[in-house]
Amino acid sequence: MTDQDDALYGIKHLTPAECWDAIRSAEVGRLGVIIDGRPEIFPVNYTVDGETVVFRTGEGTKLDGALSGNPVVFEVDGLDPESKRAWSAVVKGEAGMPESTRDIVETLELPIFPWQGGIKSRYVRIVPDEVTGRRFRVQAGGAATPRR
Amino acid sequence: MTDQDDALYGIKHLTPAECWDAIRSAEVGRLGVIIDGRPEIFPVNYTVDGETVVFRTGEGTKLDGALSGNPVVFEVDGLDPESKRAWSAVVKGEAGMPESTRDIVETLELPIFPWQGGIKSRYVRIVPDEVTGRRFRVQAGGAATPRR
Repeated sequence: MTDQDDALYGIKHLTPAECWDAIRSAEVGRLGVIIDGRPEIFPVNYTVDGETVVFRTGEGTKLDGALSGNPVVFEVDGLDPESKRAWSAVVKGEAGMPESTRDIVETLELPIFPWQGGIKSRYVRIVPDEVTGRRFRVQAGGAATPRR
Repeated sequence: MTDQDDALYGIKHLTPAECWDAIRSAEVGRLGVIIDGRPEIFPVNYTVDGETVVFRTGEGTKLDGALSGNPVVFEVDGLDPESKRAWSAVVKGEAGMPESTRDIVETLELPIFPWQGGIKSRYVRIVPDEVTGRRFRVQAGGAATPRR
């Protein structure tokens, strides 16, 4: 869509600072990774640490996918029922595990509480190349109907 | 995780029918596609039609990514605050636009109401190869803490 369309339909692009505020306001995001040439999405509980996203996971495909060396994407969205505004934010970057002793110690102190039980001893940090987001008013009767 | 772990942590794998019930209960899902070798996630409003997922979109990267011929993934999750149970469902498959006249007519009758305004004249249908999901009780204090 063009900027003109965005204005017409009440879509506001968020600044990176607004994106981080939005991301901090939620608890569940979705990690997107490529595994064997296919896209995969995993819901994760996360925390924001500075301008990075950190989550805990166990051994498995999610960890392998995140650390495959391929780029990852992380998406969060939400709806404010009062203002009827929906928002979404997308972080694109690289995922890695903390490596230095200091980073490991600091990471272990982060308040990350996965909803799902199980041993989740691995910490993964997404360092963004790009953070984008938008907010828009939810259309009462759906979006503009296409011409038929 | 092993089946034993799943039982230990109260994780229930959903049958495909249970997945579709869960997917039908929500309004926003996330489409995962690969664009230029990178994973992308787009939140979308959708409807379930038979055992397919249909959403509307405009021209743009989301449409191009969905129709690139690469596999796509579609994820929905939710939390029932009363039972404190969270669930997620993942549909993997191929995305395509309706082609036959009958399919086009039937698709145009589907109740899909995108929250975001703008011209969304393209209908995309995801035909699954695989549908998986799980439900689990949300851990009050977070998941098992790793040994340090």
